[in-house]
Amino acid sequence: MSSPTSPADLVILGGGSGGYAAAFRASELGLNVVLIERDKVGGTCLHRGCIPTKALLHAGEVADLAREGEQFGVKTSLAGIDMDGVNAYKDGVISKLYKGLQGLVKARKITYVEGEGRLTSPTTVEVNGETYEGKHVLLATGSYARSLPGLDIDGTRVITSDHALNLDRVPASAIILGGGVIGCEFASAWKSFGVDVTIVEALPHLVPLEDESSSKLLERAFRRRKIGFELGSRFSGVQSTDNGVKVSLENGKEIEAELLLVAVGRGPVSEGLGYEEAGVQMDRGYVLVDEYCQTSVPTVSAVGDLIPTLQLAHVGFGEGILVAERLAGLKPAPIDYAGVPRITYSDPEVASVGLTETQAKEKYGEVKTLTYDLAGNGRSQILKTTGAVKLIQAEDGPVVGIHMVGGHVGELIAEAQLIYNWEAEADDVASLIHPHPTQSEALGEAHLALAGKPLHVHG
Amino acid sequence: MSSPTSPADLVILGGGSGGYAAAFRASELGLNVVLIERDKVGGTCLHRGCIPTKALLHAGEVADLAREGEQFGVKTSLAGIDMDGVNAYKDGVISKLYKGLQGLVKARKITYVEGEGRLTSPTTVEVNGETYEGKHVLLATGSYARSLPGLDIDGTRVITSDHALNLDRVPASAIILGGGVIGCEFASAWKSFGVDVTIVEALPHLVPLEDESSSKLLERAFRRRKIGFELGSRFSGVQSTDNGVKVSLENGKEIEAELLLVAVGRGPVSEGLGYEEAGVQMDRGYVLVDEYCQTSVPTVSAVGDLIPTLQLAHVGFGEGILVAERLAGLKPAPIDYAGVPRITYSDPEVASVGLTETQAKEKYGEVKTLTYDLAGNGRSQILKTTGAVKLIQAEDGPVVGIHMVGGHVGELIAEAQLIYNWEAEADDVASLIHPHPTQSEALGEAHLALAGKPLHVHG
Repeated sequence: MSSPTSPADLVILGGGSGGYAAAFRASELGLNVVLIERDKVGGTCLHRGCIPTKALLHAGEVADLAREGEQFGVKTSLAGIDMDGVNAYKDGVISKLYKGLQGLVKARKITYVEGEGRLTSPTTVEVNGETYEGKHVLLATGSYARSLPGLDIDGTRVITSDHALNLDRVPASAIILGGGVIGCEFASAWKSFGVDVTIVEALPHLVPLEDESSSKLLERAFRRRKIGFELGSRFSGVQSTDNGVKVSLENGKEIEAELLLVAVGRGPVSEGLGYEEAGVQMDRGYVLVDEYCQTSVPTVSAVGDLIPTLQLAHVGFGEGILVAERLAGLKPAPIDYAGVPRITYSDPEVASVGLTETQAKEKYGEVKTLTYDLAGNGRSQILKTTGAVKLIQAEDGPVVGIHMVGGHVGELIAEAQLIYNWEAEADDVASLIHPHPTQSEALGEAHLALAGKPLHVHG
Repeated sequence: MSSPTSPADLVILGGGSGGYAAAFRASELGLNVVLIERDKVGGTCLHRGCIPTKALLHAGEVADLAREGEQFGVKTSLAGIDMDGVNAYKDGVISKLYKGLQGLVKARKITYVEGEGRLTSPTTVEVNGETYEGKHVLLATGSYARSLPGLDIDGTRVITSDHALNLDRVPASAIILGGGVIGCEFASAWKSFGVDVTIVEALPHLVPLEDESSSKLLERAFRRRKIGFELGSRFSGVQSTDNGVKVSLENGKEIEAELLLVAVGRGPVSEGLGYEEAGVQMDRGYVLVDEYCQTSVPTVSAVGDLIPTLQLAHVGFGEGILVAERLAGLKPAPIDYAGVPRITYSDPEVASVGLTETQAKEKYGEVKTLTYDLAGNGRSQILKTTGAVKLIQAEDGPVVGIHMVGGHVGELIAEAQLIYNWEAEADDVASLIHPHPTQSEALGEAHLALAGKPLHVHG
């Protein structure tokens, strides 16, 4: 165990996904670890991000199925959403996972310090008036829900995801500024709750980082669900009205709703924490690192949403583990960020791994693509979901991009991750027959077709 | 196109999963194909098996979620099951997939003959009074729902899955004879519909072909769902009562219910079809084949439920493709049947690939196992499902068995299939971080733990 007077092997500032993963792996490898967290271990992901949003989305799914039960022959009805009940369910899930995580911290004999830490030198962090010294320090202070310049978050009418996760009522209508992952997930959950939703996105597509075909399929599905969206539309201002807000766009349009959710991305939490003073190179608030997550100061590493890599909890896990293994003297390989799966958990879900078609063309010149429509997939028909699996193959080479849209396809991207990361060719997958009738078959059928032996596909 | 007077390359008797997959692949490879089916292309799987049962199970899921909506904060209610509506939904799915399949048969220029065929020589099949000659013949006549000696199926009180898929009402109670895949799937769907269900199984466990740990987890979940079961109990007789049936067991117990579903397995459809007369070796009605699905008669092959391999639609697909490729002069590899994923689509689902612990010990001597409880998996907590992922590793070697129980885990077995068939070691999978928060993470966490670097696990 470490104390303020004897240096630890590793002092970690921030107990979110990246921080605690590093702490766990480092302690497994015999390092002496201090983990400092100002709020609760688990961070954004567990308390204000991944977990609570997915709980809302599942409550939304339950509502949708009850609304549409008749099409399955089931006499269901939906009287409404009990937001207190939804919050109790969500908080129950968080609380159970939080307890589990606290148990893991204890079991691994990590010195856990609650308080707001500040980097005071390349090897020290001050917290609660005490200084913790480490041979190495890991910065993992995460991110916060950002706004636009001049757009003030008041927490009631103009809110971020932090507030949106704790609403005590279902608003009649909402405008969502930002059509990325977070915006689309809230749009989906709220629509399921009966909210009249309009998304405003400055870029020409929803989930603009995804392959364009996925964006288009999501847009088609959202249109069918009567989720409104204004694409290629820049926000110009917001005013209070009697019952809510009026949002103006640069194109002159005005939209009114009960509230405005600002979902324009997450910024790094780094201000006033002493990073620059300790000599850590930064860029617009992000801490800069090499491919081993080491900053410009050799004793200081950084991971998670604080560094300009994909802002995903599982990227945080991977980076945290990487740093722990490097500091313990192992030789971990750098992360291939293209090989990290991405999921938008809306209905339908959007999931991908590897390169988009545009990226693949830049890298390989000519590419081959194959799209398998879920209309041919029995399980998807049973679930009454639509969408597609799209494969991108480097000419005569491995599959370098896999993109899916459809209900629950997020669970299928783990297989796709193996295909991409193990550099499988179409035939390697096609030679294995997927279980029938699953949605995973769609991935199998797509590879069969790409390998030139289509089964349930017009050849 | 073939006609009765010029020999085809391949005459296929039976248009189910095995038969049509062979037809599609053979025609892709330039062979001239005649496909003979007495009923409807798609066979048992599409019309009386995989697809309709999964539709019932999904309707059951919709009912369960409406019944339990309150625990998610959603004010749902369930007034009952409209069996006409369920049947319309199920038949709608079948009909759409059937149309798609008919379209594929047409598009591939296969000569499709409707009628009951009979093998009349090693190279000829007679149907509707005409003889179709082929350089090769493929037997793919499938299976039927079997009963026990002396147990008569009357189609109303004592029924098979064929009848159970077309009930016009929800029975108040049912006894299911057989706790295998089919029995457990009907037990699950019916319980969701509100039926009082009791399973009678002669072996000591439900889904007795699965790893014992999976059987036990399913039994625990079924107990929680108040699905009754009598294990290690042999059927001795059934009598009609005023309102249904009374089933007697060899241990002296008697159980009454509205109906008895006989789900003791499926037998091969081979009687009276001329197989033995043409010299094809058989065993208890099954056609015997070598690892390339060739029978004792060199011009005759056989696939699917008719041969004594796993009775699964996707095994039929694989075998059909194998035969087509062999006859077209390619050199397909034999199927590793242990590498074929198996799923029981009950709630919770049971899925597996590779060897059970018992089988692995027989093959490798010592093995290492790791069980990851879904209690630690965020997404499973959100879905309020319980279960586990169990890995079996040959000492210091690859993962040779993966077993899962939990809601929707059937979709995860496709990734497990790649792990098994590509002979991955734990660390190959552990080095890739699965997307958070998905159920697929449980597979990732299990491999992390097996590789000695547990993340969300007490190490």
